Amino acid sequence: MLNCAWRARYKDWDRCDRTFVELAEGTSVAGVFTQSACASSEVEMGREQVKTGAARALIVNAGNSNAFTGHRGREAVEQIMAQVADHIGCDPCEVLVSSTGVIGVPLPKDRAKEGVANALNTEYCGWEDAANAIATTDTFAKGAHASAMIGGTKVDLVGIIKGSGMIAPDMATMLGYIFTDASVEPGFLQELLSSANLQTYSCITVDGDTSTSDTVLAFATGKTPAPRITGWDSPGADAFAAALTDVCRQLAQLVVRDGEGATKFISVRVSGAVSDESARRVGLAIANSPLVKTAIAGEDANWGRVVMAVGKAGEPANRDKLSIAFGGVWAARDGLPVEDYDEAPVAQHLKGQNIDLAVELGMGTGTSCVWTCDLTHGYISINADYRS
Amino acid sequence: MLNCAWRARYKDWDRCDRTFVELAEGTSVAGVFTQSACASSEVEMGREQVKTGAARALIVNAGNSNAFTGHRGREAVEQIMAQVADHIGCDPCEVLVSSTGVIGVPLPKDRAKEGVANALNTEYCGWEDAANAIATTDTFAKGAHASAMIGGTKVDLVGIIKGSGMIAPDMATMLGYIFTDASVEPGFLQELLSSANLQTYSCITVDGDTSTSDTVLAFATGKTPAPRITGWDSPGADAFAAALTDVCRQLAQLVVRDGEGATKFISVRVSGAVSDESARRVGLAIANSPLVKTAIAGEDANWGRVVMAVGKAGEPANRDKLSIAFGGVWAARDGLPVEDYDEAPVAQHLKGQNIDLAVELGMGTGTSCVWTCDLTHGYISINADYRS
Repeated sequence: MLNCAWRARYKDWDRCDRTFVELAEGTSVAGVFTQSACASSEVEMGREQVKTGAARALIVNAGNSNAFTGHRGREAVEQIMAQVADHIGCDPCEVLVSSTGVIGVPLPKDRAKEGVANALNTEYCGWEDAANAIATTDTFAKGAHASAMIGGTKVDLVGIIKGSGMIAPDMATMLGYIFTDASVEPGFLQELLSSANLQTYSCITVDGDTSTSDTVLAFATGKTPAPRITGWDSPGADAFAAALTDVCRQLAQLVVRDGEGATKFISVRVSGAVSDESARRVGLAIANSPLVKTAIAGEDANWGRVVMAVGKAGEPANRDKLSIAFGGVWAARDGLPVEDYDEAPVAQHLKGQNIDLAVELGMGTGTSCVWTCDLTHGYISINADYRS
Repeated sequence: MLNCAWRARYKDWDRCDRTFVELAEGTSVAGVFTQSACASSEVEMGREQVKTGAARALIVNAGNSNAFTGHRGREAVEQIMAQVADHIGCDPCEVLVSSTGVIGVPLPKDRAKEGVANALNTEYCGWEDAANAIATTDTFAKGAHASAMIGGTKVDLVGIIKGSGMIAPDMATMLGYIFTDASVEPGFLQELLSSANLQTYSCITVDGDTSTSDTVLAFATGKTPAPRITGWDSPGADAFAAALTDVCRQLAQLVVRDGEGATKFISVRVSGAVSDESARRVGLAIANSPLVKTAIAGEDANWGRVVMAVGKAGEPANRDKLSIAFGGVWAARDGLPVEDYDEAPVAQHLKGQNIDLAVELGMGTGTSCVWTCDLTHGYISINADYRS
């Protein structure tokens, strides 16, 4: 049961901002969370809850992150958990809660209580409605779908996500939820989600700022007759893992495409690093550089700024082995500008909305792909006047 | 002898862009440089040159950083060193060269040669002229002065600096030069400069991007009769160290005040960290956060974003011990919003040009002060169309 019709009015707005998902008995859960040292109560509690591997409900509050609200914030979450558990007859720790929005304002308990009471008794909604209800500064609803064959039975995976600014996930991003009717052992679901996370959410950045609320949860209800997946030896495990990573990648990329003020989606492909992790760090140094991002906003193939970003990344690199390409055209090779470099096709590529930036470090075989967006006046306009 | 009258026209501009400083025999030199893995030839060679401790000349080219130009870049620097050394009769390695400007274009040897020939034979200029000649996107000339009494004799220190964007020095910043007529042992001068650097240049950031050319050099000509300073036991060593740090701090703060697009100068004071270095890292995480910087640009005391930045810093912190103040007014104390928080004086403070942000971590006794500027539409305008 999916419900997002309720307007708890956590902000001064007239829209649905409370989402409730009831999950079948026996649902497995896995999660990845922000590594912020100032994480919200929802995150702190969620980290513990997913260890049990069982979930019966998800509540998402939009408009108030309930982060940095001390014991009052925790009490609000506990109240919601108890109220929902009482209604559906489960353990409170099987009720996962997320909140997103302004930091430092305790979630109002009265609105939360009234909201839950109503949410439990109103009509179903669709995935797009839910994707809209969990959003804050997002400009469009974000969802993804994939399927996999498990022992001859098709299982589906559906995901929704929200996020646009304060995006530099460090093991997770903003709020994302993936639901599947497959039957998956919780420990293995956690392994798959953590692995998918490293290749997807952990490879995106909008502004280098890491949220206090980043959470991605995966729920497997086991409502199909497909055989249970308990490990890599189970039939269909590979197909399910690929489908899960596919959904995660789609969701992660949607967040970047909706990056605050973004006009271009940028793929930064790093190869030749000493390891994949080193490649990812170099990619993020490039993707987080305001000078690289403003150059691309200005449609300027200023690869000197890419050199700068590689140099500051703190990873093994050698100036004289470095090569850089935009849109498949090498501007610099082995530490030198390319002699007969023709900027015309590059200039044309930069006028597009999908920018491909490749960096070859020449140090080893490590590779990674990181996704980001450009930095524009739009970002400044959105963030110089957000809270007030 | 200070000369900056020459127009080498490293860019398509009509202004002085070549500075030449001739230094007395016996001048000591010390330097700190960028830790970029893609540093320019000037930086690579400068690191070696300062180890000898002796300098007779400084050449600064503005408009072309000569970074990422491989062997051709190195040859251009060697040509300049040989030409100047031949003229003044010194070892080429006593000629320090710096270049600043666009990355990836080899310094043109012909213009460099003609420029040096002319620079050696034209009139003297003043410090302000030199500060203008070394500038690129800077909007004003930056200089500082201090003096110290050494064994009853007054010595002077004069510094000039350039820098406005690509400022996140990692042991040094952009191009800065300090000249003193004191007599100082090179090894001790290096110790003092490195120490001053940690409290000054390493505590500023404009955009978190670290240059490939960052260099600060200190020259001590020994032209006064003041006794030579060889270590902390020498008369006046403390006074000289304080004066040197004073000049460095003035110069570093001028760079932030001229940060690209900056409208506000922000001091981030972090206390209660587990160490001074940890405090500095937390301070830089705050000072580099685009969300904190845009909030201040918008004159919004959005301290929730400060919580976020502390959380992502990767340093020991505890949400429930964290306190945050703007302009001396505590908005949050011990992990909770202050109950009777009056935002009026804070709003007034944020309308000013000098913003004071204090963060108490409650973890230990480490402190640091970091300086940055706000992030505005001006930064985007300057950098989305710089190279072309």
